[in-house]
Amino acid sequence: MTPSQHTPEERRPIGALLAPDILALLEESPSQIAAETEEMHPADLADVAEAMPFERVPVFLAALPKDRAADVLEYLDEELRAEVLEAMTAEQAAALVTEMKPDERADVLEELDEERAEEIVEEMPAAARKETEQLRRFDPDSAGGLMTTEFVSVEATTSVEEALRRVRVIARSEKREAMYAVYTTDETGKLAGVLSLRELLAAPEGATLADVAWTEPITISPNADREEVARVISNYDLVVVPVVSESGHVMGVITVDDVIDAIQEEQTEDVQKFGGLQALDEPYMQIGIVTMMKKRAGWLSILLVSEMLTTQVMQHFDKELKAVAALTLFVPLVVSSGGNSGSQATSLITRAMALREVTLADWWRVALRELPSGAVLGVILGVIGIMRIALWQRMGWYDYGSADHTWGQVALTVGCSLIGIVTFGSLAGSMLPFLLRRVGFDPASASAPLVATLVDVTGLSIYFGVAWMLLLR
Amino acid sequence: MTPSQHTPEERRPIGALLAPDILALLEESPSQIAAETEEMHPADLADVAEAMPFERVPVFLAALPKDRAADVLEYLDEELRAEVLEAMTAEQAAALVTEMKPDERADVLEELDEERAEEIVEEMPAAARKETEQLRRFDPDSAGGLMTTEFVSVEATTSVEEALRRVRVIARSEKREAMYAVYTTDETGKLAGVLSLRELLAAPEGATLADVAWTEPITISPNADREEVARVISNYDLVVVPVVSESGHVMGVITVDDVIDAIQEEQTEDVQKFGGLQALDEPYMQIGIVTMMKKRAGWLSILLVSEMLTTQVMQHFDKELKAVAALTLFVPLVVSSGGNSGSQATSLITRAMALREVTLADWWRVALRELPSGAVLGVILGVIGIMRIALWQRMGWYDYGSADHTWGQVALTVGCSLIGIVTFGSLAGSMLPFLLRRVGFDPASASAPLVATLVDVTGLSIYFGVAWMLLLR
Repeated sequence: MTPSQHTPEERRPIGALLAPDILALLEESPSQIAAETEEMHPADLADVAEAMPFERVPVFLAALPKDRAADVLEYLDEELRAEVLEAMTAEQAAALVTEMKPDERADVLEELDEERAEEIVEEMPAAARKETEQLRRFDPDSAGGLMTTEFVSVEATTSVEEALRRVRVIARSEKREAMYAVYTTDETGKLAGVLSLRELLAAPEGATLADVAWTEPITISPNADREEVARVISNYDLVVVPVVSESGHVMGVITVDDVIDAIQEEQTEDVQKFGGLQALDEPYMQIGIVTMMKKRAGWLSILLVSEMLTTQVMQHFDKELKAVAALTLFVPLVVSSGGNSGSQATSLITRAMALREVTLADWWRVALRELPSGAVLGVILGVIGIMRIALWQRMGWYDYGSADHTWGQVALTVGCSLIGIVTFGSLAGSMLPFLLRRVGFDPASASAPLVATLVDVTGLSIYFGVAWMLLLR
Repeated sequence: MTPSQHTPEERRPIGALLAPDILALLEESPSQIAAETEEMHPADLADVAEAMPFERVPVFLAALPKDRAADVLEYLDEELRAEVLEAMTAEQAAALVTEMKPDERADVLEELDEERAEEIVEEMPAAARKETEQLRRFDPDSAGGLMTTEFVSVEATTSVEEALRRVRVIARSEKREAMYAVYTTDETGKLAGVLSLRELLAAPEGATLADVAWTEPITISPNADREEVARVISNYDLVVVPVVSESGHVMGVITVDDVIDAIQEEQTEDVQKFGGLQALDEPYMQIGIVTMMKKRAGWLSILLVSEMLTTQVMQHFDKELKAVAALTLFVPLVVSSGGNSGSQATSLITRAMALREVTLADWWRVALRELPSGAVLGVILGVIGIMRIALWQRMGWYDYGSADHTWGQVALTVGCSLIGIVTFGSLAGSMLPFLLRRVGFDPASASAPLVATLVDVTGLSIYFGVAWMLLLR
């Protein structure tokens, strides 16, 4: 088995490639599995398991040392993992889950039936059970739900050499995933400072931790949501951040790998919401087709019903439409431009909000940028629109004039409407995320289709309003 | 100055709050600045600098120890940083930049004029100059451009205690940002294995590194793009990944903090493209309004010109529209539904592609999912559409019938068109990203407005086609 060099466009190759070999070995001499896969990364072993027939997966896990099997479980596809744990006895499952990191343990149990999860927790050793029950009380998307309770803290008065000795003992005895930093505490046990493992190694002999630790650690509250955690970790380039209670005690730590997963999930949700559907929460190719349709049908129906207002507006201007038939020809053109400019503005603002570049209080600053931008963009589109009509008319491809009005009036109506609609679209698209956040919704729900629908209805009214002034009065 | 507890909705508070105090201190006794800010995180000091009048920033940086000033420079807003370095002499700038991490050094120089960057590089000490010039040869968005050349590697035959001693010497003498892992090399200097700093500390005394290191390290090629780097780091939950040349030598390492920044930038680009504009590359509130309009006007104009095809279609069905005036009323309703379902499908597929859940070869699997989903969604919307028309007709709010046709024919036309258009929209929206990737474009360019425009034109043709069959023949 060769080292894995990753080049572009390759897609998790190792696991899929090795699955047949390992499956064959599992039949012939399962006792060799552990030795043969010893140097493989658990993520690759998880790929191997995913490529196997389902009923072989528990056998494969049983053939690995318990701590390796727990590592593989961590990287396994969520649905498969739940099924595997359902297929085992509660005792077997508990033995595996206990070997996992505390935060992963809580996540795994979250995916199971409440009842099954309880059964497994019951079978755990007392210490692991208590740890797990504490973590399960937090919202899985909060800092408390993301943290693990394994970290290293030492009293600030400890000497550097003694701290290093303790760190080595802990590193040997347990699997402390978050051993990138050492936290120092004061005499009451409250967080006093932090230093990285590198800084501990670099510290001069004879010093105490209080001499070398940073005394203003960046911390996070257990109720902060995962977006906030991601922002703090990425702002300060941290590998690990402590979760600190109101009383100032470290409750746990969040490591960067969990934050990357949270950022990816959050971004997937945001993209899907912006596309105009409920977030899927599962990979596209794996989600059931019925579940997916449910997540799409809701918004599509709401948008359709809202869009029915356009029919209302059209009915209202019934007579005008019959009087100037040429007006009808430009309806899709004119209204879609509003939707397009609105979609641009919405994508800019929801993203800027997600990155906290823009807060609720900035709404008027944004409006002051979007209003002139929208107007200029509207003028550009208006000119293009007028040129299009003039070209067709001059070339004799179509006659937009009639007994009652000239083609120039039609062209001017389209041009002026485009200015109004693009300006309105930019403004509405940029203000909608603020409005949604103000009334307590996720600003990411301001989807491109929602903006387009809002602007379609208003855009039609603008179009007919302009027509009334320039053509029909 | 108190520790910074981060709670939701707070926005980088510390820097902005402290700026006036530090500014006052800078006037009165600049010599105290270093001591007073000693425990602050450089990210917060960068916020302080950003809140100052521009001409005070170089003074502030000069008041800090050189390595601290370099740290602050790393976190400073890109534009401000470039201006600050322009304002200094090349010698001063070189002194600061030399103190930065090699990868940051290359990034900073990238933001300056080529000429100015050269001047600064000229003033650097020889070793730093060579290092920097090597890194600047790589594309900034590739693994080579993201990596830093500071890492710890030791021959595999070294004993654990000797390796630990060497690590401590290096930790004391230099700022090795990537000291999370130690790489082992074989006798030819090629990468042989890896172990984390924790694993080194946990290793039994008397062992050699070859006994304890992992022999199949996950690596990345220098030409991999940043999306690929992000995928490897997040798949394997790494904190650092070595960049390895074809000959098997470690060229540098990429740390997770740089990857998070890359993920965020990539995501911002994708969201903006999906919204239908060119990626801004700068925060919304900071980008010049003219630059922003240029990035929006291009796509808006292209979309407008494409959307003009709808006018063409409408002109083509001119007579039919005049014969059945009721058809006009549902034009915006019917075409927008295609755009909405297309936008849903596009958001799902572009995201799944970005996460490599779906590759180019999967196009037919996706089509086989979207075709039935689109059809069912179309039936749901079709039924709602028919119910709407029936309700209005029955309640006597509007009469959709005429001498030539019944209202039922109109309702059926709208219903059947919705089925066809939503099915087509889902299919077109899901296939567009594949098509774009196939011909070498970024699939993220498949924006909601682009899909809506494509589907508008086809949707109108479907609508009039159905009308021709059910109403006009």
